[in-house]
Amino acid sequence: MHELIENGTPWTLKEVGTDPEVIKQNETLFSLSNGHIGTRGSLEEAHLTPDYSHSKSTLMNGFYDTEPITYGEWAYGYATHHQTTIPIPDGKKMEMKCDGEVFDLASSDVQAHSRVLDLKKGVLTRAFTWNTSSGNKIDVSIERFVSYDFPEIIAQRFVLTPTKDNSALELSFELDDLEKMGNEVSKEDDPDPRKKEQASRRFESADLEFHDAGMIHITTHASGLHAVVGNKVMTENDVHQQIADKKRDSLSLHSKADESIVIDRFVAYSDLFKEASLKDEVTDELVRTLKTVSQYGYEELLSKHIQKMASFWDKSDIQIEGEQALQLGLRFNLFHLHQAAGRDGKTNMSAKGLTGEGYEGHYFWDTEMYMFPFFLYTQPDIARSLLMYRYSILPQARERARTMAIDKGALFAWRTINGEEASPYYPAGTAQIHINADIAHAIYSYGEVTGDSAFMLKEGVEMLVETARFWMEWGHFDDERNEAFVINDVTGPDEYTAIVNNNYYTNLMAKKNLTYAIEWVEKSGDQSTGDNLNVSADELAGWKKAAEKMFLPYDKDKQLTMQDDSFFHKKVWDFDQTPKENYPLLLNYHPLTIYKHQVCKQADTVLGQFLFLDDFSLEQKKRDYAYYEKVTTHDSSLSRSVFGMMASQIGEDKKAYDYFMDTALMDITDLQSNTRDGVHAANMGGTWMSMVQGFAGLRVSEGTLHSSPHCPLKWDRVAFKVSFKKRLIEISMTPSSTDYTLLEGESLTIIENGKEITL
Amino acid sequence: MHELIENGTPWTLKEVGTDPEVIKQNETLFSLSNGHIGTRGSLEEAHLTPDYSHSKSTLMNGFYDTEPITYGEWAYGYATHHQTTIPIPDGKKMEMKCDGEVFDLASSDVQAHSRVLDLKKGVLTRAFTWNTSSGNKIDVSIERFVSYDFPEIIAQRFVLTPTKDNSALELSFELDDLEKMGNEVSKEDDPDPRKKEQASRRFESADLEFHDAGMIHITTHASGLHAVVGNKVMTENDVHQQIADKKRDSLSLHSKADESIVIDRFVAYSDLFKEASLKDEVTDELVRTLKTVSQYGYEELLSKHIQKMASFWDKSDIQIEGEQALQLGLRFNLFHLHQAAGRDGKTNMSAKGLTGEGYEGHYFWDTEMYMFPFFLYTQPDIARSLLMYRYSILPQARERARTMAIDKGALFAWRTINGEEASPYYPAGTAQIHINADIAHAIYSYGEVTGDSAFMLKEGVEMLVETARFWMEWGHFDDERNEAFVINDVTGPDEYTAIVNNNYYTNLMAKKNLTYAIEWVEKSGDQSTGDNLNVSADELAGWKKAAEKMFLPYDKDKQLTMQDDSFFHKKVWDFDQTPKENYPLLLNYHPLTIYKHQVCKQADTVLGQFLFLDDFSLEQKKRDYAYYEKVTTHDSSLSRSVFGMMASQIGEDKKAYDYFMDTALMDITDLQSNTRDGVHAANMGGTWMSMVQGFAGLRVSEGTLHSSPHCPLKWDRVAFKVSFKKRLIEISMTPSSTDYTLLEGESLTIIENGKEITL
Repeated sequence: MHELIENGTPWTLKEVGTDPEVIKQNETLFSLSNGHIGTRGSLEEAHLTPDYSHSKSTLMNGFYDTEPITYGEWAYGYATHHQTTIPIPDGKKMEMKCDGEVFDLASSDVQAHSRVLDLKKGVLTRAFTWNTSSGNKIDVSIERFVSYDFPEIIAQRFVLTPTKDNSALELSFELDDLEKMGNEVSKEDDPDPRKKEQASRRFESADLEFHDAGMIHITTHASGLHAVVGNKVMTENDVHQQIADKKRDSLSLHSKADESIVIDRFVAYSDLFKEASLKDEVTDELVRTLKTVSQYGYEELLSKHIQKMASFWDKSDIQIEGEQALQLGLRFNLFHLHQAAGRDGKTNMSAKGLTGEGYEGHYFWDTEMYMFPFFLYTQPDIARSLLMYRYSILPQARERARTMAIDKGALFAWRTINGEEASPYYPAGTAQIHINADIAHAIYSYGEVTGDSAFMLKEGVEMLVETARFWMEWGHFDDERNEAFVINDVTGPDEYTAIVNNNYYTNLMAKKNLTYAIEWVEKSGDQSTGDNLNVSADELAGWKKAAEKMFLPYDKDKQLTMQDDSFFHKKVWDFDQTPKENYPLLLNYHPLTIYKHQVCKQADTVLGQFLFLDDFSLEQKKRDYAYYEKVTTHDSSLSRSVFGMMASQIGEDKKAYDYFMDTALMDITDLQSNTRDGVHAANMGGTWMSMVQGFAGLRVSEGTLHSSPHCPLKWDRVAFKVSFKKRLIEISMTPSSTDYTLLEGESLTIIENGKEITL
Repeated sequence: MHELIENGTPWTLKEVGTDPEVIKQNETLFSLSNGHIGTRGSLEEAHLTPDYSHSKSTLMNGFYDTEPITYGEWAYGYATHHQTTIPIPDGKKMEMKCDGEVFDLASSDVQAHSRVLDLKKGVLTRAFTWNTSSGNKIDVSIERFVSYDFPEIIAQRFVLTPTKDNSALELSFELDDLEKMGNEVSKEDDPDPRKKEQASRRFESADLEFHDAGMIHITTHASGLHAVVGNKVMTENDVHQQIADKKRDSLSLHSKADESIVIDRFVAYSDLFKEASLKDEVTDELVRTLKTVSQYGYEELLSKHIQKMASFWDKSDIQIEGEQALQLGLRFNLFHLHQAAGRDGKTNMSAKGLTGEGYEGHYFWDTEMYMFPFFLYTQPDIARSLLMYRYSILPQARERARTMAIDKGALFAWRTINGEEASPYYPAGTAQIHINADIAHAIYSYGEVTGDSAFMLKEGVEMLVETARFWMEWGHFDDERNEAFVINDVTGPDEYTAIVNNNYYTNLMAKKNLTYAIEWVEKSGDQSTGDNLNVSADELAGWKKAAEKMFLPYDKDKQLTMQDDSFFHKKVWDFDQTPKENYPLLLNYHPLTIYKHQVCKQADTVLGQFLFLDDFSLEQKKRDYAYYEKVTTHDSSLSRSVFGMMASQIGEDKKAYDYFMDTALMDITDLQSNTRDGVHAANMGGTWMSMVQGFAGLRVSEGTLHSSPHCPLKWDRVAFKVSFKKRLIEISMTPSSTDYTLLEGESLTIIENGKEITL
């Protein structure tokens, strides 16, 4: 078992000792965030101990810089600019001296060093004893949390308990302006396209007037984004001297034996803004916030934070009896999932959350297809904010469609922060037009699960219509296939084939996208308040015909679903002759070498079928699963959870369990060998889906909640709650039975394996 | 009719006047080259008159610099470096002063300015009268040629005939070191992927000891190539003062009324070399060459050059009676074709020859499929050198195959100078693996036409075997198509579809490649001296099976050949709704927008069928032609010639004629609107092919020469010569009859429309 778990409890991960490699690895796992700001779990003195840090970034959701994309060879319509989430001034930096000796983990004499991440409270604690060369012995504890109550605030408490008098203690707290970045990784050294880290600072900072706290104003180099950062340090101990200026706050104290010195620090990060003229207003606002939290004080602020965490866990926890490691792994994933979501309708969830710079902080389809369901069923408000983000970038999506010579409808960017396409490799970027249908699917599900008709009648229906329109323009009725509706030259979720015709997943989702749009246009009629609608009868008829005639590739002889028109005409990858170190294939084979083989990076056909479980016979699902599992490498972290969920629904209990354990512990055990770049947020969503939609088989069909529980024998009991149409329902599974308890709201009927149960 | 032709003769192009736009345009057309060095037809004072020059480059075949290719997103096996032919010190630069006034076309008082390109002699002459502000009137004539006798030499003669005494004349001749390049086009200003011009100098130059001529040593920045350039100026007139140094030679003279001042200049460019240590040796060699040519003197050197030109025309001219414009256009194309070819077995022919920097001076399939046939039938030695170049890069081709995870055989680079892949966009680069078969086809044809068994038994068979091996590894026997041999994820010549399965042209050519290899392995048996052969009986059997079972996509209902598996499943491009200014499509639509439609950039299926005319029924060729012509934009200059040739073979005489006129006059009339970047060498080869293989229908089948003449009615007579198996044959066509005359060699039988004719 992994030592973090071994040393932990069902609610805590514990790191023991001072091994630089362990501490470096845990920088990602110990990241704290509230969806607005996130800060990695680096040591306070990381700037002095580079070997202990991979990246000590503090990131702000949606705060990115741009630079032109350079292409070896240009073509029309290519994405023009990189968008890159950039590290901002780091509020964790601390320097501690005793009688002139500077503390750092690398060189100081330290005992009993440990760090604990408390998932229940959302607090990271560090404790150790420092034997100073001047002969003092100081117990140090450092606590850190990122407030859910005040989204701008990172709060830290430093407690020093010396055992001797009269040591000269100096502590200084500076906003690390990142003159030198922690993580200089040049593309030469590491061309892995999945990561992109900053080799140099990407913002300018200017000191602002001191407002009883150091304040600075930061501006990105190219993207024109602004933010204000404040730094406030407080103590009630006798301070010999305190020098506070723009971004540095230094305290000198004299130690008294066994008397604890308690220093509290609040670092505040404003919302980002685009108009420089707003600077003063935003600064005043942030100064007010700092004043308020100073008046509350650290303990009060912490307790408010813990209350918020408690209400989160109350709705979102999954209790599992019989496997402590899994219980902890599960909570760890839910914890990070919760941390990753933007809540302001202007930001979203990046593939790594705010725990690292992997994938440049871009938002992908991961949000809708892997992370959204968790929020939809446990915190619908956040689910709504995530969809409002898509609505906010609908104008860019319309623009993108025009660039692709599509004169009606919208095409959402494959990867983006500001709504513009940022993928420099269109065969695995823009070509993944399934993102349009993925978003439509999330919107429709939101309507089904929440019954929020206000959203559906305005933003919802508008996005459904604009995405539906895109399919009509991109695809066509193929007279070679007696007028079947075909969609050519696309790339499905499985990026190990690209630019194919009639990718099964894409066509299936497009069909649903059309039916969703039809249903809501008909349902809403005149009530709908979305813009750019006026759907004509002809247009509606066209959608119906296309949905009905949608081509879904199927091999009658093999009785297998085809991933695309040509998949079965390709040679099966020679897995036996492929050495372990050649995975992931994308880093070791030319794209054409991969594309011309039957080999999948991740679930594609299987994902499509899982999303609409009831549309396919058990036999069909079993056959397709058996075939595609054989040719899938799971080089993508999005793969295992889907194979696991489907396994549990087709009676492959052992596989379901094994895949689930992989997903639940993926980051703690660094299964993908790149956790240092950030957590795999989509996989964390996949863990929740595996439990609720996989093992419990929870889904909505024609407005009704369905379940088909398969609780693994290893577990004594699994319990979780879901929100559904203003009800709160607790579901408790054992291998032999499942109970449903209505905790809030009016009675409703759910269907378990076709059997009605009324609560 | 175009004024260049109007003012010309059947052998000369004449430019009259001083319109900067005309002079700029003709810079490309008036380029002179001998396959080793090429220099654009810019004015001698172009450095003073930027408006009159697009680029005054002097280029050396194979002299390129490299720089790393930057990708927005990297993937394994991508080409790593750009290779770019770079302008070298320009030997045309001249400054002329009279009584202190500096001459230039922009500001001086000039009369009767004209330039004439004499195709027969290979000489460019410029003449004008200069009315100096000091009241002198000077007739100036400047002559320039690039020697075929001494490949290192650019020779120039300047003749000044003043009408008054005692003007102080100063002439200085400097090697333009290109501190400022003529043509600063940044990618921002012009992202057209087809061109890539230098924004800054790409070499360093060092002065060498003065050897009765200025000498400099140039070295590229990154590619490690070296060359030596010498500058020698001579006159027999009384010189008041001559100051010659490293790279500048200035003469001061006093004018005498009506006495011509004659100044000769020889600029010498050594072979390129890779070892700096060879510098002195190469320099001595070049000094000797300069001494030799100085001893000959300009006139002698010119007459030797003209002799070489005469023997070229004797073998290569196409005489056409009845259309002077066409006669001139034809000769212009043959002239440039001849100028473009590397002759040393280490260099080849770039897409623009040495007339411009378009396509970075890369060598493509154009050589084998469009330019090679002309040399094969008129100058087999040059044809052999071109194939020896491919042999010289066979090691890089083997390496490239390994990078593509192919462990046997070789894959030639799609675009290259040094043999390594230089295409930064693999879907229209590396994916065009048909280049392997194109090269094999040229090798096989070379054997057929020349009977040069020494080459075929060594280099020939080795390349045939290594390319054949590649196909076996890339393709496979598809059990979904009862074991047909399929070749997936490739791009054919038509780059408007990419990464398709079973591109018809590719599969057809691969089939031929395999049969060529089989034939020569069996024919050569033990005699073959090529390396890496040892073809086993099993291997041979495998090739036979693959060739036999090669899948050639065909639509039985439509009775049409399919360009690839999916071509007919795509929507036909909406040509009616496409405005003229949106062509070429590649500059105005995203690749996916183009790929998902039925639209062709150039001949693909039709080219395949034309190469093997006798393999297909007339009806089939007619049907396919009719279909594909409708969906082809001819955005590529390689397209029209092929449609023209096929037209003449299927009785579409009007089309054949119209396409032919377009190809014959493409650059003179700037049909593609980018002649300023260099001539379209492949199209020029296409012109010769159109005449000889199109209208005369000349081809080799089973070792015998076949013809099927279709001489357009507009022409009274067409005559040309071809070499075939050590014979020289003159073919003379009229609309009513065709005569064949054996000029050299033993009697042979040729077959005209199935009828034997013995000469």
